[in-house]
Amino acid sequence: MTDDKSYHMTPDEFREHGYAVVDWIADYMNRVESLPVLSQVKPGDIRAALPTAPPESGESFGVMLKDLDDIILPGITHWQSPNFFAYFPANASGPAILGDLLASGLGVQGMLWLTSPACTELETHVLDWVAKMLDLPDKFKSTTSGGGGGVIQHTASDASLCALLTARERATKFTSNSTGINRKLIAYTSTQAHSSIEKAMMIAGLGKNNLRLIDVDQTMAMKPPELEAAIADDLEDGLKPCFVCATVGTTSSNAMDPLPEIGEICRRYGIWLHVDAAMSGTAALCPEFRHIHAGLEFADSYCFNPHKWMFTNFDCDCFFIADRAALINTLSILPEYLRNEATASGAVIDYRDWHVPLGRRFRALKLWFVIRHYGIQGLQHHIREHIRLAQEFADWICADDQFELAVDPPLNLVCFRHIRGDEINQRIMDDLNRSGKIYLTHTKMNDKLTLRMSIGQTHTRYRHVERAWQLIRETAGGLDS
Amino acid sequence: MTDDKSYHMTPDEFREHGYAVVDWIADYMNRVESLPVLSQVKPGDIRAALPTAPPESGESFGVMLKDLDDIILPGITHWQSPNFFAYFPANASGPAILGDLLASGLGVQGMLWLTSPACTELETHVLDWVAKMLDLPDKFKSTTSGGGGGVIQHTASDASLCALLTARERATKFTSNSTGINRKLIAYTSTQAHSSIEKAMMIAGLGKNNLRLIDVDQTMAMKPPELEAAIADDLEDGLKPCFVCATVGTTSSNAMDPLPEIGEICRRYGIWLHVDAAMSGTAALCPEFRHIHAGLEFADSYCFNPHKWMFTNFDCDCFFIADRAALINTLSILPEYLRNEATASGAVIDYRDWHVPLGRRFRALKLWFVIRHYGIQGLQHHIREHIRLAQEFADWICADDQFELAVDPPLNLVCFRHIRGDEINQRIMDDLNRSGKIYLTHTKMNDKLTLRMSIGQTHTRYRHVERAWQLIRETAGGLDS
Repeated sequence: MTDDKSYHMTPDEFREHGYAVVDWIADYMNRVESLPVLSQVKPGDIRAALPTAPPESGESFGVMLKDLDDIILPGITHWQSPNFFAYFPANASGPAILGDLLASGLGVQGMLWLTSPACTELETHVLDWVAKMLDLPDKFKSTTSGGGGGVIQHTASDASLCALLTARERATKFTSNSTGINRKLIAYTSTQAHSSIEKAMMIAGLGKNNLRLIDVDQTMAMKPPELEAAIADDLEDGLKPCFVCATVGTTSSNAMDPLPEIGEICRRYGIWLHVDAAMSGTAALCPEFRHIHAGLEFADSYCFNPHKWMFTNFDCDCFFIADRAALINTLSILPEYLRNEATASGAVIDYRDWHVPLGRRFRALKLWFVIRHYGIQGLQHHIREHIRLAQEFADWICADDQFELAVDPPLNLVCFRHIRGDEINQRIMDDLNRSGKIYLTHTKMNDKLTLRMSIGQTHTRYRHVERAWQLIRETAGGLDS
Repeated sequence: MTDDKSYHMTPDEFREHGYAVVDWIADYMNRVESLPVLSQVKPGDIRAALPTAPPESGESFGVMLKDLDDIILPGITHWQSPNFFAYFPANASGPAILGDLLASGLGVQGMLWLTSPACTELETHVLDWVAKMLDLPDKFKSTTSGGGGGVIQHTASDASLCALLTARERATKFTSNSTGINRKLIAYTSTQAHSSIEKAMMIAGLGKNNLRLIDVDQTMAMKPPELEAAIADDLEDGLKPCFVCATVGTTSSNAMDPLPEIGEICRRYGIWLHVDAAMSGTAALCPEFRHIHAGLEFADSYCFNPHKWMFTNFDCDCFFIADRAALINTLSILPEYLRNEATASGAVIDYRDWHVPLGRRFRALKLWFVIRHYGIQGLQHHIREHIRLAQEFADWICADDQFELAVDPPLNLVCFRHIRGDEINQRIMDDLNRSGKIYLTHTKMNDKLTLRMSIGQTHTRYRHVERAWQLIRETAGGLDS
């Protein structure tokens, strides 16, 4: 009656292979700088190297690690290279990776307080720490009398969706969840906001036609008078404004929407204000950059992503809400098989009611490890350094008569272009990215193709930025001749 | 101009601390069986042990690991204990944990093919492997001419939401995304379906009142004639049926909805059929259990969770769709800053358009490692063993005159009860869980409190099930006297 056969990896085997994987990653950290940043493979190359059929019998761990080098690595675009200047950073760090590894090893499901109290309580606690570290309004802390608090979501897209859903319910007296949408609810954001707001409108059943994209000023920031005019128009048309998303640091160009003016309008009209600070929120670790959050006291919800710029590997979005009862009323479900005494007592948080999925990973561990490893001072140091490097890069752009800034960089993202138009900028970017030496991406600003130099990778230092600038000038020079 | 100060963990430090974490996990694997399965802490205990303020300066890694033992571990409910019989399994394994660790180390964002081609292509490829391993209909493979394919979602909740959204769009000729919901769309599932279906109706703006909960038979499976009657009623009322979710292995009692009959009805009325096989789908690795998928050829979409019963640590839900164009049309967004040649060529998959979030982790690595480590044979062996243990446990129940089965167990979940009513069952469960020796949870079936013995943890063997049964009998006996 006993089962002695086992295909499982034993603890001793895990130790042996685990050391090998740790070695692989440590070596990767050492050599990533020398690898082509943007993967040079063609569509289909990776699949062509993989066997058509899954293996009947198990394979050795060594073979799998070798395939990682031989098959997978050429297909990797190295987000952890200090020469990665594309999109936004997704910067990881040793303490984050090891905290996440422990979460995998513990393998707990944090859907309810009961299913691992530490998973819930550490998360609530560390998010209070984060609120303190960014000097967020007290209402976003779990310890406030008003009943706020934070939760880790997958991404800012998920956080914005939850904010929009809660706004939708509040605006319909929590009836849409039951009846479905039966009147036009209107949301507002700037033309520069992240695409996830439009996607959230689609998902929430509100329709992207009911999202008003408010015009921006020359810094690409939302114009509050235009917001107010749009709200007034909609009210006049008998529509119901319910949600405004303001952005602290847009994806395209890092523009900062004016929260005090927007917030005042939202309060006046009773509209939910969500603030998306996905990348830039991290800057508020440093008192000298906290001005980006001026006006946050008007917000109903706020999010930023430690998995972008705070050395915490994906995924980790911190979502804060001032009225958690509204969020829970929006997303709560309680089937019989999840009932338990702790939940019934009301003395605990059950995070399943704070987001879309039921199951949840112990993500607070990695954030706890990051904050403790660096300390507030260490985090501040590196954020300051990234911003200093970006500002210096911007100075070089200004001093070069072949290049111009598209906009003054508020923090760590520099939008710039060669003065001779879209074609040369496209060619500079394509040539550089094909070279594998650095990777940078583009946007359009005022209909002009604009290059983006995003500085935030964990190990990016002065010499990387200096070399990038040299490569950009050389590439442009080569195209000139 | 150089920045020599750094708070980062160096590769050498990462190696040292990484070994320590691997050792910690290997030791945890060895001792988890001896720890109380259900955490014994009270609400607030964990938070009370944590410092109120985050640290100004960094702390040593050794201190952090020590706090893991001293503060966190008492607050863990041990999902990886072989004595964990609660809810559903969330079984992890060495190869999964190490594959996931490599994903953390690489730290890539797979939102576009371009941002790491291997992240996308390995996922598409491994999901084709999985489709083959479960013998799913060809239409769910990426290589089919019809344009199907698989994607890894966080959880079955996310997969069901995406299925519902796609059904919503198809039923409204892809206009709801633009205009919002403006007619009543109706969805159907059984009274036993997972709560995530109701939650998806809320999120999608359709309203839970428009979800018809179809009655079940004595095995807790949906009654197809009742489904058809409900559809006919709604059509007569001028409503628009758009979505049916059938469950292969309900959460409460592992009931199997009859897919052939349900599928035939869906086809006749042109209704989207989604099949949720979150836990039980894994059983189809073994030919002798593939009958659970009979009728799957009628389905438009299907999901199951390797993070439940296939030794892959959370999160990993495999979602398959027959018409991927419909899914992409539902969720696609393309802001300027994400435009690139590979995407424009149409030759690649960009998984950002297959789910809610934009960013995504390289989760295919861990699934690839699991399949290769175990091979099909190894996976089959352990699934068969879990089912064999559950069936033997059920035999013991049948042979004991103090206990009864609530329903014949189809696979690895046994629903049973003491014959003397709710109170003694509640006390048996509470006493056992408080003892820390095993952990099991309950449901209600026909209004009776019913105990659930869910057998699927990686290291659960005969002796653990045998001891659990002994403890259950002893506890019941103690309450008798």
